[in-house]
Formats: sequence, C-alpha cells, structure tokens
Amino acid sequence: GTSPSRRFNIALLPGDGVGPEVIAVAKDVLNLAASLEGIGFDYKEMPVGGAALDLTGVPLPDETLMAAKQSDAVLFGAIGGYKWDDNPKHLKPETGLLQLRKGLEVFANLRPATVFPQLVNASTLKREVAEGVDLMVVRELTGGIYFGQPRGFKTSEDGEEIGFNTEVYAAHEIDRVARVAFENARKRQGRVCSVDKANVLEASMLWRKRVTAIAAEYPDIELSHMYVDNAAMQLIRNPKQFDTILTNNIFGDILSDAASMITGSIGMLPSASLRESGPGLFEPIHGSAPDIAGQDKANPLATVLSAAMLLKYGIGEESAAKRIEAAVLDTLERGFRTGDIYSAGCKLVGCKAMGEELLKSIESHK
Amino acid sequence: GTSPSRRFNIALLPGDGVGPEVIAVAKDVLNLAASLEGIGFDYKEMPVGGAALDLTGVPLPDETLMAAKQSDAVLFGAIGGYKWDDNPKHLKPETGLLQLRKGLEVFANLRPATVFPQLVNASTLKREVAEGVDLMVVRELTGGIYFGQPRGFKTSEDGEEIGFNTEVYAAHEIDRVARVAFENARKRQGRVCSVDKANVLEASMLWRKRVTAIAAEYPDIELSHMYVDNAAMQLIRNPKQFDTILTNNIFGDILSDAASMITGSIGMLPSASLRESGPGLFEPIHGSAPDIAGQDKANPLATVLSAAMLLKYGIGEESAAKRIEAAVLDTLERGFRTGDIYSAGCKLVGCKAMGEELLKSIESHK
Ligand SMILES: CC(C)[C@H](C(=O)O)[C@@H](O)C(=O)O
Ligand SMILES: CC(C)[C@H](C(=O)O)[C@@H](O)C(=O)O
Repeated sequence: GTSPSRRFNIALLPGDGVGPEVIAVAKDVLNLAASLEGIGFDYKEMPVGGAALDLTGVPLPDETLMAAKQSDAVLFGAIGGYKWDDNPKHLKPETGLLQLRKGLEVFANLRPATVFPQLVNASTLKREVAEGVDLMVVRELTGGIYFGQPRGFKTSEDGEEIGFNTEVYAAHEIDRVARVAFENARKRQGRVCSVDKANVLEASMLWRKRVTAIAAEYPDIELSHMYVDNAAMQLIRNPKQFDTILTNNIFGDILSDAASMITGSIGMLPSASLRESGPGLFEPIHGSAPDIAGQDKANPLATVLSAAMLLKYGIGEESAAKRIEAAVLDTLERGFRTGDIYSAGCKLVGCKAMGEELLKSIESHK
Repeated sequence: GTSPSRRFNIALLPGDGVGPEVIAVAKDVLNLAASLEGIGFDYKEMPVGGAALDLTGVPLPDETLMAAKQSDAVLFGAIGGYKWDDNPKHLKPETGLLQLRKGLEVFANLRPATVFPQLVNASTLKREVAEGVDLMVVRELTGGIYFGQPRGFKTSEDGEEIGFNTEVYAAHEIDRVARVAFENARKRQGRVCSVDKANVLEASMLWRKRVTAIAAEYPDIELSHMYVDNAAMQLIRNPKQFDTILTNNIFGDILSDAASMITGSIGMLPSASLRESGPGLFEPIHGSAPDIAGQDKANPLATVLSAAMLLKYGIGEESAAKRIEAAVLDTLERGFRTGDIYSAGCKLVGCKAMGEELLKSIESHK
C-alpha cells in the first residue's frame, strides 16, 4: 500500500481500571477510520495515574508530560482505583490528571451531552424531557479553585485545624475560555448560557463582567446568565433549553456530570480539552470503573467518540471523525450494547466485541 | 376564650416579590394550628432584602437583625427582584439574607426534598425514579466560600483584573454541622452521605476527615462519602439511594436545588436554618418570583411547611406542626392546586384561596 500522506504523533495514556481496555479499542478504530482518509499515526504509550504511581512513584512522570507536550494530540483513558484512594494529595492518581491538564495548558474543556436516540430509554428523565437533548458544556479547566493559591492546611491560634482553597480568576483566563464557548456556539445553535454565582462570589462577578464584555465580539451569539443553583435545577427541569453552557472549573465539574447523566448515555460521552494551539487532551468523561476492570465489560464508545473529537478538534481531520461517529450510530442501530447500556432485545457484547463491530461498520461504509 | 398557655415571639420577614403574599398565608395557618394547641404568637414584621433597601438603604437594617435575634424564631419569605439586580454586592438583596444567616449564626440548613404522592407526575423524572424520594440535605450555611476571607478584586502586576474568594473550613465548623446531620439521620433512616471534593480540595479533605471522626460518636449511623460531581449524577440516576446528605455551603446550594427539582415539588419545599440554641430561620426554598408577584398566583405551601418546621425545629411544638402538615396533604388530596403544580382535573386556586382551604382543613380536623 501507499504510505499515508499525513502522519501525526499521538500520546496514548491508558491509565487505570478500564482505561487500557477502552484505549485499545479506540486505537484500532482510530487507525482504521484515519487510514481510509490517508492519515497515519505514530503512537507513544505512556503511564499516568495509579499505573504511573506503581511504576515510578509519581502520578505524572516527567517523561509522560514530555511525550504529551511533544505529541499532536493526547488520547487518555481513565485514572484512579481503590488501591490509591488513601494516598496523600500529591500521590493521588487524580493529581496526575490535573497536572497533565495544567502542563498542557488545555484551558477549555468541551463536554457534549447528547442523547443517542437508541438510548433515550436509559435516561431516568421522561422521554419527552430527555429526547433531543444536545448541549455542550464548555468548562474552564486550568484555573479556579482547582489550582488557586494559597491552598492547604493551617492551625488556628487556639490549635484548631483549618483547610482552605482559593477560587481565583484573572480576566484573561475568563476571556479565552469565553471565546472558545462563543466560537463553539457559532457551529451550534448560537446560544451561550454562562453559569456563575455572581450574587455571592467576587470571582463570579468578574466572570460575568468579562463574559459580557467578550460577547460584544460575537453579536451573532445570544448570551444569557444563570446562577449555578438554578442551572442545576434547569438541567433537570428542561435540559433542551440549553445549547452551550459556559462555566468555571468546579461548577463545570458538577454540571457536566449532571448533564451527562440526564442523557442516560453516560458510558457514551467523550470530552476534548483544548488550548489556542498545542496538543489537545481527549478523554471519556467516565472514570476508571475499577469494579469491572479487566473483565472485558467496559463500554468503549465514550473513548471511541473521544478519538473522533481528537480527529475533529485536535488535528482538524473532520472526515475521519465522521467515519467514527457514523460507525457508533450504525453499531447501536444494529443492536449491539455493552452491559451499561443494555436493554431487552439488544445484543449484549463485551468491550472487544463492540470494537470489532465498530471496525465492521467502518469497513462496510468505505 | 382562655389566653394561650405558651407564647412565642416571631420575627416575620416577608421580603420581596411573592414573599409578602406567602407570608400572609403562612401566618394565618400558623396562628390557627398553634391556637388549637394552646400556643400564641407575638409577631414583629420587619423589612429585609430589596424592601429594606428601598426603605432604609441597606438590605439588612440593624433593627431587623436585632428583632430576629430577640425572637424565638424567624419566618422569612423571599428576597430579590429585577430592580436591584445590578446593585453592587453590599447593596444586593441577597446580601441581606447572607448577613441574616451569619448574624443569627444558623450554621445548619435543613432542606427536605420529598415527593408529594399527589404531585409525582410533576417531576421530570420517570415515576418509578421519583416516587418515594424522601431525602434531607443538611447544608453548612455560615462558612465556606460564601463568607471566607480574603475575598474581592485586585489588579495583577500587568494591570489585569482578578476576582477571588476563599473556601475555608475550620474543624469546629465541620464538626457541629456533622452532628446536626447525624442527629437528623437518627430520626430518619440512619444513613448519612457526606459530599465533598476531597480528591482535589484541601478544604474538602479536612471536611472528610472531621466528618469521619464525628461519625465515631454515632455508631448507629451509616456514613458514606461521595464526590460532588458524582452526587449530582446520583441524584438524577437514583435519588432514592439517599437519606441524609451532608455537605458544605456551596455544594449544598447546588445539590439541594437539584434535589428539590427532582421531586417536582419545588413550590412545596421548606427549609430550616438552625444553630445549637437561639432562634432558627425558616424559609421556603423558592425565590421571590418577581414575574408573578402581586398577582395572587404564588404557591404558599413551601412557606406554610416552613412554618411547620418552625413549630417542630424552632420551638419544639411538634403537634401543631403535624396539624399543618396534615392540612397540606388534605388540601392537595381535595384537589386544590396553585398554577405551578396544577394538572388537569384539579381545582386551580390562587395564593389566598389556597390559604383558606388550608384553614378549612385545620378547622375540620379539630
Ligand atoms: C478526577 C477528577 C480530578 C476530575 C475533575 O474533578 O476534574 C473528574 O471528575 C473530571 O471531571 O474529569
Ligand atoms: C439567594 C442566594 C444568596 C441563596 C444562596 O445561595 O444561599 C439561595 O440560592 C439559597 O440557596 O438560599
């Protein structure tokens, strides 16, 4: 065969739990879809999270961060597990993920929450409420209370223990993620709902002020503001009202998980973490699911769809991305389901078999 | 008639929007139910929120806080409205509420989320998911990022604007609210789920450590821990798994609103804010609903049930509380509904008429 005309370096970070299983499937799917578009990949597989802790003593080895930085895009599995649950903060698997996000400076986290028509019954929301939900949470990912200084523990004058963190945003951190949200909304329904707690928090007041200022650059986009407590309610009351939700790191953590659960498609949902230029980070929104790790039971579709986001947002290869998205829909349409999304009348398959069906779908739509 | 054998001082803070309407109904209901138990009240009505801003220039006048402190319990309506939306922080209606909570030191906010069987269809969740939900959020109310210092705005060296807040908890603040949650769980199903973000935040790590330590005093209570993002999902996936949820101020703000929306009974839900001793603060969880203010459309039941919590938790008059709770159920059973909870076949009534039906219910069950 001819050698691919475009080659990209991918850092592959399987991590813990079901991470390696879903990454293996996603890699095969990515390879096939890309090869049909004349794209080739060079992979560098590196440890992260608990796997890295066991191997090297730290959750994000320098070599892993270096490989990620030098890649064109990073495909990430999942991290965490019971074994490391009681580790101190700097030795938690999660810390590896946070260091990776910060190290890559991927400040904009895109989390689509889409109801797959085949899975609408899996939602705990009534069909008429869940059906057609298609929103995108744009979460600030490298600032706010996750990284704010000062933080830590201290002892009060009378010997009492105190724990503290700082929620902090500088104008440019808000501006740049707001622009990502507005740009994104342009490719969607043109509506951004910015979520904050500006009736209480100064950091949120600045958030609202900057988002409003940046909105002036996007006169074609409709901007609204909502308090975070109300947003948590509105996601349950009527999720279809939302197009793009723009919010800070901690509110985005909470609301994007709520949004994904609303779809009933939680094992299906991908994410992309981006910066202006430089490699993006692509990961399923689900965790490492240690209870089913190594049993070939995991649903690989969220990671497969993360690979599609890698193609689209990471390296600008939209045609290959579309091949993957179509294969996922086709495979669902043909009735294949992993345990987490199984319902009566469907064909129950494991992680690997789901991967094989995806490959067949891609093959048959050449 | 004979004069009531027990008299209590109630500070009545109607506030803004629908506040005065729902407070008027709740006061009548409270009076009747209490009088049947030989209880009498002396009311002191005071301005708060936007109403206080208009009258006195501040959202919590000293006289209002004083009256609240000198009372046996405070019944609060709602605050806020378009008119004051762009006020600076110290002149926001919300600030009046925060100052009142802090001034009364009511550190434990109890927010029941109960599905009323008559209203289960109003939930956007499937019947089998919503039916039977009966949980209590115990939210820390006078600490954390709502009140933490330092907070404010500053300018970076290169002239950039920065907004910041401090999430901070001292051991005793966690201990005392944890005890309230454990005591409460004892009167319920005996299970406490403590919600935090201990995989990222030091303030949450201390939270988890202290809650675990206090749990040792309550060997009969089952304690579990959950990350806040997962809790937001689990409330949607299976709210019935929860009995008592214990969490900090900001997470409690978000999760209690989500929990209340899940019940579909949001216009129905009361809250109590308590300290070890001293007057408690009782308020509906809904806001001031400026869009329907003054139109006799508001649902008074959340405030009426807050009055029942006042009787039970505030002044220890459980029999009178039961009269009110029974009247609410009976009135729903007889088919009366305000617009927010109306469904076909029911009798649509306004705020006042709903109040009259409640009085009839209480009268007819003497
Ligand atoms: C694992 C954890 C640190 C992480 C976060 O809080 O960001 C996760 O919940 C997520 O949302 O990706
Ligand atoms: C009005 C606002 C300050 C308040 C809060 O955030 O505590 C409200 O949302 C609530 O939950 O009682």
